[in-house]
Amino acid sequence: MDANVYRLTEIVGSSDQGIDHAVKTALERASKTLRHLDWFEVTSIRGSLDANGVPTVQVTLKVGFKLEDPDETAG
Amino acid sequence: MDANVYRLTEIVGSSDQGIDHAVKTALERASKTLRHLDWFEVTSIRGSLDANGVPTVQVTLKVGFKLEDPDETAG
Amino acid sequence: MDANVYRLTEIVGSSDQGIDHAVKTALERASKTLRHLDWFEVTSIRGSLDANGVPTVQVTLKVGFKLEDPDETAG
Amino acid sequence: MDANVYRLTEIVGSSDQGIDHAVKTALERASKTLRHLDWFEVTSIRGSLDANGVPTVQVTLKVGFKLEDPDETAG
Amino acid sequence: MDANVYRLTEIVGSSDQGIDHAVKTALERASKTLRHLDWFEVTSIRGSLDANGVPTVQVTLKVGFKLEDPDETAG
Amino acid sequence: MDANVYRLTEIVGSSDQGIDHAVKTALERASKTLRHLDWFEVTSIRGSLDANGVPTVQVTLKVGFKLEDPDETAG
Amino acid sequence: MDANVYRLTEIVGSSDQGIDHAVKTALERASKTLRHLDWFEVTSIRGSLDANGVPTVQVTLKVGFKLEDPDETAG
Amino acid sequence: MDANVYRLTEIVGSSDQGIDHAVKTALERASKTLRHLDWFEVTSIRGSLDANGVPTVQVTLKVGFKLEDPDETAG
Amino acid sequence: MDANVYRLTEIVGSSDQGIDHAVKTALERASKTLRHLDWFEVTSIRGSLDANGVPTVQVTLKVGFKLEDPDETAG
Amino acid sequence: MDANVYRLTEIVGSSDQGIDHAVKTALERASKTLRHLDWFEVTSIRGSLDANGVPTVQVTLKVGFKLEDPDETAG
Amino acid sequence: MDANVYRLTEIVGSSDQGIDHAVKTALERASKTLRHLDWFEVTSIRGSLDANGVPTVQVTLKVGFKLEDPDETAG
Amino acid sequence: MDANVYRLTEIVGSSDQGIDHAVKTALERASKTLRHLDWFEVTSIRGSLDANGVPTVQVTLKVGFKLEDPDETAG
Repeated sequence: MDANVYRLTEIVGSSDQGIDHAVKTALERASKTLRHLDWFEVTSIRGSLDANGVPTVQVTLKVGFKLEDPDETAG
Repeated sequence: MDANVYRLTEIVGSSDQGIDHAVKTALERASKTLRHLDWFEVTSIRGSLDANGVPTVQVTLKVGFKLEDPDETAG
Repeated sequence: MDANVYRLTEIVGSSDQGIDHAVKTALERASKTLRHLDWFEVTSIRGSLDANGVPTVQVTLKVGFKLEDPDETAG
Repeated sequence: MDANVYRLTEIVGSSDQGIDHAVKTALERASKTLRHLDWFEVTSIRGSLDANGVPTVQVTLKVGFKLEDPDETAG
Repeated sequence: MDANVYRLTEIVGSSDQGIDHAVKTALERASKTLRHLDWFEVTSIRGSLDANGVPTVQVTLKVGFKLEDPDETAG
Repeated sequence: MDANVYRLTEIVGSSDQGIDHAVKTALERASKTLRHLDWFEVTSIRGSLDANGVPTVQVTLKVGFKLEDPDETAG
Repeated sequence: MDANVYRLTEIVGSSDQGIDHAVKTALERASKTLRHLDWFEVTSIRGSLDANGVPTVQVTLKVGFKLEDPDETAG
Repeated sequence: MDANVYRLTEIVGSSDQGIDHAVKTALERASKTLRHLDWFEVTSIRGSLDANGVPTVQVTLKVGFKLEDPDETAG
Repeated sequence: MDANVYRLTEIVGSSDQGIDHAVKTALERASKTLRHLDWFEVTSIRGSLDANGVPTVQVTLKVGFKLEDPDETAG
Repeated sequence: MDANVYRLTEIVGSSDQGIDHAVKTALERASKTLRHLDWFEVTSIRGSLDANGVPTVQVTLKVGFKLEDPDETAG
Repeated sequence: MDANVYRLTEIVGSSDQGIDHAVKTALERASKTLRHLDWFEVTSIRGSLDANGVPTVQVTLKVGFKLEDPDETAG
Repeated sequence: MDANVYRLTEIVGSSDQGIDHAVKTALERASKTLRHLDWFEVTSIRGSLDANGVPTVQVTLKVGFKLEDPDETAG
């Protein structure tokens, strides 16, 4: 019986090297504290410009990961 | 004075037994680690099919629960 | 190199004193358990009425905060 | 000449027996006071949980029904 | 002190003569039972085709009208 | 068995004293003709300016109220 | 037992004679290759202007049509 | 190198036995003409009522399936 | 190398002669002050009714036009 | 013949005194450079927090104003 | 008389080399079976992660292409 | 007292070198005529294909910039 449960967490990766790098930055940071990262979806692409007009892109992601059963992990 | 604060967490329940069962699966798993579950809203209904075409439905829920006051709980 | 990562959490502040107060209530509660609160966005404004028709407003916010690097904090 | 006019009314059916039952409950109640119910669309699926964690689903529907011509009915 | 209250009702006008005519049909029917029609907004444009492929357009409108004060009207 | 049915009506409250007052104005007017008002959600915040630039805010609300069973009330 | 299946296809009709004509153009073209056209919905209204500023409207439609059972048609 | 391409097709399954059955009906019909069905998402839940008020639910799905490489299949 | 930049401006055309005429009115007015109008998209269709119930339609458009390079035009 | 044209401009008012004040700040600034301000709509409510957690609200408004005919004004 | 008709098809390109590459992959595959590709729009950016946390991006595109007149092509 | 006002302008950058380059192109062009560019958000990613199937990406951005006080600048 397939009855898995996943959780979504929303994170924002920023980068001055473009959108793909901001996604990569966010996923690498998330993988340090969350196990079983399974999928993601981009929910917004924004950015800020510093006083010299140099842009930093900010990509918001929802990241899904599988929840372990607390009963199992308690064993 | 009513000044309660709630938190929303987003979870995905999957099931090969239909949408209601996927909702139930997600809520039961959430109730194992969160207290004071108060309401939910369905934000997407998706699914996957295995190699034999058998579908598993995946229902995404936002689940709201009341936050306890950290001052009280610290007592 | 700017490669910060932020997290978004979704909370609901309620108040019988209006929308601004509900926002303030939610942000004050969030600041008790989260550091580096950086920005917020209002995603819905709802409310309930008690048996006497007195309304309580419920404002849902996404709140963004900067994640510390787990490598640094582990040091 | 086809120049019919319909009206949409928005109702919420609740049920502790699942989404289909909540839809059925809403449509049966609507049919008691409205004639010529013609179609519906689900606009949200939410729910609440009681103190024991038992969920009640709340399905919001827009229901369309044909308006009779007031000139005819006045005859 | 300006503290008027309006109500919105959602209606669908259909016509085999095009979108403008469907809007006109809906507004004329609404004006037979509602006073003080003030504004409208188109929320969807759909249509159906009969067995010969002849289309009938269905325009959904929200129509706003000013509510009279029940205290005044009760006089 | 919980099988209640609610109805949503959409109203617009206007005020030259701000958003909270426009919400309050709308709810007070609705409570004069509808019983069992239960909840509301803000669906848009707009406004107009008079010739002197003085703004009036217009808040659109969906208001939910419990329908009584027509069989009971007919008794 | 009613268990029909329909398919939606998305098409864009263009016209320099207005929105209704663009809808008509799209539906007539669709009817040349698809049978059982049943309904449509307008999903966007756009347009382009030529070098002299003359506009051509482009209406995007989703068109639904009933699928025949492949078992029947194979007979 | 992972460079697969998928296609999405939008279908509507109808059923007088509820939402899960309408989904199942649509997927079974799609599997008769499309190979490699991989996932689906529900994009709307609507329905119609016959003259006796009996509802038929209509669930719209986007169904994704993997495209075979035309070069391979041409071999 | 194709690296053109366009700007979008949002305008509202009103007309008592229908939606197409409101679009035409808006585009003609825009072409008096903007060069290189290239495309448009309709973002809302609303309207108002006067005291006699005569409607005026208000169509909101985003209009795109090519920006000239300020370096060139400064020459 | 009613064939007026309006323009929408999008502005953000910020305030540490709440949402209504941010709206007022934005409208007052807009009225310094634009004539014939006619209406507005709130498109987002966001905010930032300083290092001490003090919030500043940022309300985004679309503001509509009537365009004068360039032929008239050129006279 | 400009009365062209276009069709939209929705495809998903995947790539482990980033978003632009996923778009390119999808367009190249589409061009193998469809002629007259004219424009595209990105409707979602998602991705999956393998067991080692390596992401594959999945970009969903609507691709528009001009339909040939079946009467012409039949000649 | 923080009561700054910002304006949003919507621009489209195009590029045959990918999404990041289209964003960069748009921001550089905007910075030639607007001061105090502060942030941006991507509102759509589209593209066109030439007769040889070579794509040009078109990224629509809302760009925010701080308005100077006209009283100050008039000094």
